[in-house]
Amino acid sequence: MAGVQATLTVDTGSRRYPIFIGEKLLSDESLFAPYCADRQVLVISNAPIAEHYLPKLAPWLMQAGNSLIEIPTGETHKTLSTCEMIWQKLLAAGFNRHCLLVALGGGIVGDITGFAAACYQRGVDFIQLPTSLLAQVDSSVGGKTGVNHPLGKNMIGAFHQPQMVAIDIETLTTLPKREFRAGLAEVIKMALLFDADFFDWLETNIEAILMLDKASLVHLIRQSVQLKVNIVAQDEKEKGCRALLNLGHTYGHAIEHCQGFGKVLHGEAVAIGCLLACYFSEQELGLDPSLRKRLQRLLYQCDLPRELPLGTNGSKMLETMKRDKKNSQDNINLVLLDALASARIYPCSDLALIQRHIDEYRLI
Amino acid sequence: MAGVQATLTVDTGSRRYPIFIGEKLLSDESLFAPYCADRQVLVISNAPIAEHYLPKLAPWLMQAGNSLIEIPTGETHKTLSTCEMIWQKLLAAGFNRHCLLVALGGGIVGDITGFAAACYQRGVDFIQLPTSLLAQVDSSVGGKTGVNHPLGKNMIGAFHQPQMVAIDIETLTTLPKREFRAGLAEVIKMALLFDADFFDWLETNIEAILMLDKASLVHLIRQSVQLKVNIVAQDEKEKGCRALLNLGHTYGHAIEHCQGFGKVLHGEAVAIGCLLACYFSEQELGLDPSLRKRLQRLLYQCDLPRELPLGTNGSKMLETMKRDKKNSQDNINLVLLDALASARIYPCSDLALIQRHIDEYRLI
Repeated sequence: MAGVQATLTVDTGSRRYPIFIGEKLLSDESLFAPYCADRQVLVISNAPIAEHYLPKLAPWLMQAGNSLIEIPTGETHKTLSTCEMIWQKLLAAGFNRHCLLVALGGGIVGDITGFAAACYQRGVDFIQLPTSLLAQVDSSVGGKTGVNHPLGKNMIGAFHQPQMVAIDIETLTTLPKREFRAGLAEVIKMALLFDADFFDWLETNIEAILMLDKASLVHLIRQSVQLKVNIVAQDEKEKGCRALLNLGHTYGHAIEHCQGFGKVLHGEAVAIGCLLACYFSEQELGLDPSLRKRLQRLLYQCDLPRELPLGTNGSKMLETMKRDKKNSQDNINLVLLDALASARIYPCSDLALIQRHIDEYRLI
Repeated sequence: MAGVQATLTVDTGSRRYPIFIGEKLLSDESLFAPYCADRQVLVISNAPIAEHYLPKLAPWLMQAGNSLIEIPTGETHKTLSTCEMIWQKLLAAGFNRHCLLVALGGGIVGDITGFAAACYQRGVDFIQLPTSLLAQVDSSVGGKTGVNHPLGKNMIGAFHQPQMVAIDIETLTTLPKREFRAGLAEVIKMALLFDADFFDWLETNIEAILMLDKASLVHLIRQSVQLKVNIVAQDEKEKGCRALLNLGHTYGHAIEHCQGFGKVLHGEAVAIGCLLACYFSEQELGLDPSLRKRLQRLLYQCDLPRELPLGTNGSKMLETMKRDKKNSQDNINLVLLDALASARIYPCSDLALIQRHIDEYRLI
């Protein structure tokens, strides 16, 4: 496992698994052998990713009985129908409950594969080979899996932890720049939530990161994933502190929903969502406005949006926010900041206030 | 909780919940209040059951915000499409992740409701109010949930434990006789597997049971459920001993599949499956044939089938058995008996042998 530059461990109490970060991991047979030996393996990917990276997997993929399915690209295909394609393939090929699914791709491939694994024969193993920055620092870690429903994002899903995650930073070289930058939004969110030093480091090193400097990327990913692992270890099923990770997401999902899934990238919506959370925090919790200025500058350097897209407003967003999974009773549970690296859940029953602050933010 | 005559507790390590057995439980508000207070509740049932038993639930159901959905009756509707109906209803009504689903019905309603609960917003609570004997002694207990796929029964599902199970024996008075008898097949299976005294008791008391004698029913259900609870506590996810509960089921599922789901009742297929398992055990493990004779007599008294249905044979059954969830590698994992109350998993790679014993059994 020569290319591994960092190894982290997730331990949820009931499940324990490694996360490897490094270079040339996809072609490192020794990394995969313990997971793939003596079982049926189905690799799940999409056409653009498979074209680039399937040849690297070839040595261990091409064993007898293993198989590949390419699923359609994009958030609009993150649906039950796509899962049904996978289940159909597994059943038609006679895969039993000892099989392994391998997600090779971004967050959408990972979320769908994880959910397909969670429900196939009441749960089979899967591993994550995330190829987008968003998937590497966020969605591949922690066991949240699922698909969208016309009435809401990620509404159908399961908690299902992978057996292993291998993050090969070389995949970032073929990732579209826009997607790379959207992934940075989740990294910035983690720093905002938990780690002031990391936020400083991001401000200082953003140019090197955008140039895909390898040492910077490894540090960035390791630090982000470690922060997430710390939270997942405490609260796998999001009964408590894990909900903090939704900073910017209640707003972000609403923006995605208003625009139509796929029009605005998830990370882009989260970037705007974090700014909205900062603004609300300033108005209601007295957060120092200088943090929002720092955040705006960092997002600007990443070429990430800072303004609500046309056609999105407080009234439309509120309709979606009311259906958010994180709500309880009549409250919308926002994640707000008292200061950098000091966040809390803020149950808010004053829906008019939420709407007003969104619309105020549009005008400043 | 005046009507409760027995309370058992399931403890899987991670989850602990009660099973109440008795009379007039459905109308006992004190039983439900702790589970239903201050949350959105959706009752899931089907037309025949709702007609009989929904009025009994009325006092606690009619709170503001609660709701009912009737799903189509029968195994052919135990599909993802039916789950999607439920998810659509939940989302359209704005149900959040603190909601409760209530399964009021037989095993199909319970399995679908449990799976819908497992996947809605990555898992919400549900309770089981089983109204068929099969659901009461078997499917409502232990957290197996799921739906069928055209290529196999229960292939899409999850382990998801309920918050509570309330078994009201009065529902057995409106259960069609054929379904009651099919449920007895699972009870007989449990006795065959684990409890020779209980098997004796069944032989002695079968007339009283068939007359729906209340004390006999409570004893029958309590004993069956306790045997299942013992196993689930040891092995929730069917990594080991829980697989023994599949006695007669690998054969049974194949019979159901060959006939088309719903033509032969699950319990009827299991009855024949247990006889096939006995026959195989006689041939390969030296099981005393007298047990099969006792079993045949008991099944006869219950008016349960003892012969393979027309159109079903070893070759056809083997095709389905090869896709069974319980298989590992190239083995079909049969559950066989060395003696009454002494069972074991028997991995069998000799598919021709399995087929031959089925066809021999057809001719004796």
